[in-house]
Amino acid sequence: MANRLVNMPRLQSILSAEGIDAIVATSPENVTYASGYWALSQWIRRGPQTYVLVPAADPEDACLVASSSLLDLLADQRVWVKDVRRFGYFRMDRTEGQLDALSARQAALEDLPVEDDALTALVAALEARGLASARIAVDELGLLPGHWEQLQARLPHAQLVPAMRLFRAIRAVKTAVEINSLRQAAQITERSIAAALAIARPGITEIAMARAFHTQTVAENAWPVLGCIGFGSRSAMPNVQPSETALAIGDIIRFDAGGRYNHYRADIARIATLGPAPDRVRRYHRALHLGVEAALQAIKPGVAASTIFDVAVETVRREGIPHYARSHVGHGIGLDGYDLPDLTPTSSDLIEEGMVLCVETPYYELGWGGLQVEDTVVVRADGVETFMTTSGALMEVGA
Amino acid sequence: MANRLVNMPRLQSILSAEGIDAIVATSPENVTYASGYWALSQWIRRGPQTYVLVPAADPEDACLVASSSLLDLLADQRVWVKDVRRFGYFRMDRTEGQLDALSARQAALEDLPVEDDALTALVAALEARGLASARIAVDELGLLPGHWEQLQARLPHAQLVPAMRLFRAIRAVKTAVEINSLRQAAQITERSIAAALAIARPGITEIAMARAFHTQTVAENAWPVLGCIGFGSRSAMPNVQPSETALAIGDIIRFDAGGRYNHYRADIARIATLGPAPDRVRRYHRALHLGVEAALQAIKPGVAASTIFDVAVETVRREGIPHYARSHVGHGIGLDGYDLPDLTPTSSDLIEEGMVLCVETPYYELGWGGLQVEDTVVVRADGVETFMTTSGALMEVGA
Repeated sequence: MANRLVNMPRLQSILSAEGIDAIVATSPENVTYASGYWALSQWIRRGPQTYVLVPAADPEDACLVASSSLLDLLADQRVWVKDVRRFGYFRMDRTEGQLDALSARQAALEDLPVEDDALTALVAALEARGLASARIAVDELGLLPGHWEQLQARLPHAQLVPAMRLFRAIRAVKTAVEINSLRQAAQITERSIAAALAIARPGITEIAMARAFHTQTVAENAWPVLGCIGFGSRSAMPNVQPSETALAIGDIIRFDAGGRYNHYRADIARIATLGPAPDRVRRYHRALHLGVEAALQAIKPGVAASTIFDVAVETVRREGIPHYARSHVGHGIGLDGYDLPDLTPTSSDLIEEGMVLCVETPYYELGWGGLQVEDTVVVRADGVETFMTTSGALMEVGA
Repeated sequence: MANRLVNMPRLQSILSAEGIDAIVATSPENVTYASGYWALSQWIRRGPQTYVLVPAADPEDACLVASSSLLDLLADQRVWVKDVRRFGYFRMDRTEGQLDALSARQAALEDLPVEDDALTALVAALEARGLASARIAVDELGLLPGHWEQLQARLPHAQLVPAMRLFRAIRAVKTAVEINSLRQAAQITERSIAAALAIARPGITEIAMARAFHTQTVAENAWPVLGCIGFGSRSAMPNVQPSETALAIGDIIRFDAGGRYNHYRADIARIATLGPAPDRVRRYHRALHLGVEAALQAIKPGVAASTIFDVAVETVRREGIPHYARSHVGHGIGLDGYDLPDLTPTSSDLIEEGMVLCVETPYYELGWGGLQVEDTVVVRADGVETFMTTSGALMEVGA
């Protein structure tokens, strides 16, 4: 179990509390989470189907439903699920000589019986486990419209309930292997910000700085995903996409960015100015930074997410932005960029040990600029352990 | 119209042929296609909703349904749709001074009335156009389960039909701006393969070569997406993900890879060997290459996709791999990696001028290796114009 992504005790506990007999992953995040299987085509397109069935009573009896065209990745990856049902046609030739170990694993998978489609394979897997009349949570996020109704029609005695909410609840508390990947993803992002800021000088464009950012991400074997990098008044655009805008002395440089490492996301925000920061930038940024620091101090198992929100917002207001308002001051992060909990004023979530949180206090003032501090931390028994190797303080660079 | 992605005459013709009054895009590919709007969060996560409504009778009266949190990108991008309906809360402060042009556009969008959610905004847009009882094609790919039923319940007199199939048919024939992006994406991929092969030497790993590949992609302002790079017997894995496997003299190096440029995908395959190629590699590769060349010669408007399949497979068999078998020899490419047409033996599609095709003859022999030639071309009135600046011939490198 040590190198599994899935938090199996939490999965079992949540299924038990809801009276659910089995859960089925269908979306890329939940398939990878439940099994370790990263099925390329569903990650880069919408439509391709892959499923993981986990029976609540005996999770080791899980089943993976995989396309015949993706069995190579199943043979090559660390997937703990033993029972595989494949579907669809894919042509592979086979050499006449002895097979190496990897090829032999792939050959064994290709020799499995084949079903016509993914739903047929899933129905067979459920029936084989005596779950045809069970209460089954099905992840609605990866299904195509109509699939839910087809599944219900083929399992008329089953009670299907949506699983997206349950998977989000399960994924909220990370396992050790997830925490390690998230730490690395976060630190790769910090180094990518440093690499980008290293080329800051008057006249450099947002696009050039983004290129430096992503180049470092790739150099560390991560995938570029989020790259909001804006200069001057463009820093007020929450989702700013790099343009040919050139950097000038006194400009804010806002990063809200992060790649994907071992499938796990990063989401970090840092602010610099080219040359000395204007006074209001310095004052406002200090207040935002203190807001994050206060929130991090307040995070402990058992504390309400809404309390963290209040601490952050009240600190920012008291320390220098009296009109500061937000809908949230952070969120969980994992295979998805927005895992639970949400740090909102109305959240009913409690902080738990093992949650990995992005804590942030963005401030967007249209026509002036945007400032933001966003750190990633893991919740431990007595507070937070930060993933950050850099301070969220304002940086004055170049010039 | 000149810089629009959407092929509006084709859209109107297909809607007219199917008796459809309006079409609604919901998936990221179709939203960007229909409007030019690239709404970050729906591209990197599943769940966030953005819609484009295009009335068949008057496409210029299109409507964009956008989240309040993504209005900055709408202000900053080339979006031709004038009517915007926003939904959801997002906090933006506004400076007291004069606004620059970009900030003023964003401010105007933020001053629009706000709806509670995306479906409510869509229903209002349909009602405002007298389409509440119309026959409406709705892209099912971007909706969440339940949305379809909710939409039908709120428009009880409307006839909703799935639009995914229609959008795929519309997108199959590219506009000039799409062709330019696809050409650039393909050529960036060729240069990324060259950059990767430039470091080929005994002992280099698949991961190191993938890093060189993606670094070049990023250097050309494209996003890494597909990076199947395998050595030796691992080249037989269709979806091979780079590992610590080290390159040895005589090894096959297989690339099936491509990034995303201006939102448009690339998918190119090339083969090299480290040092002189073993005889069977050379013979088989020559046959596969001739298969692609013959297919490209056969592609003309009006020819059946199934004919292209037959030409490719028969050529490969005749030229040296008598047992060659495939389910397809290529596909369209665009915002999605697999656009129409599919070059399959059972396809009923005809080749049309303006289609952009990936034509490929992969051969995977488990335990031995994989070989593949994949070129991207655009169909012109009298045949194909290739995007390739390199030959698909086998390359012998390094050593």
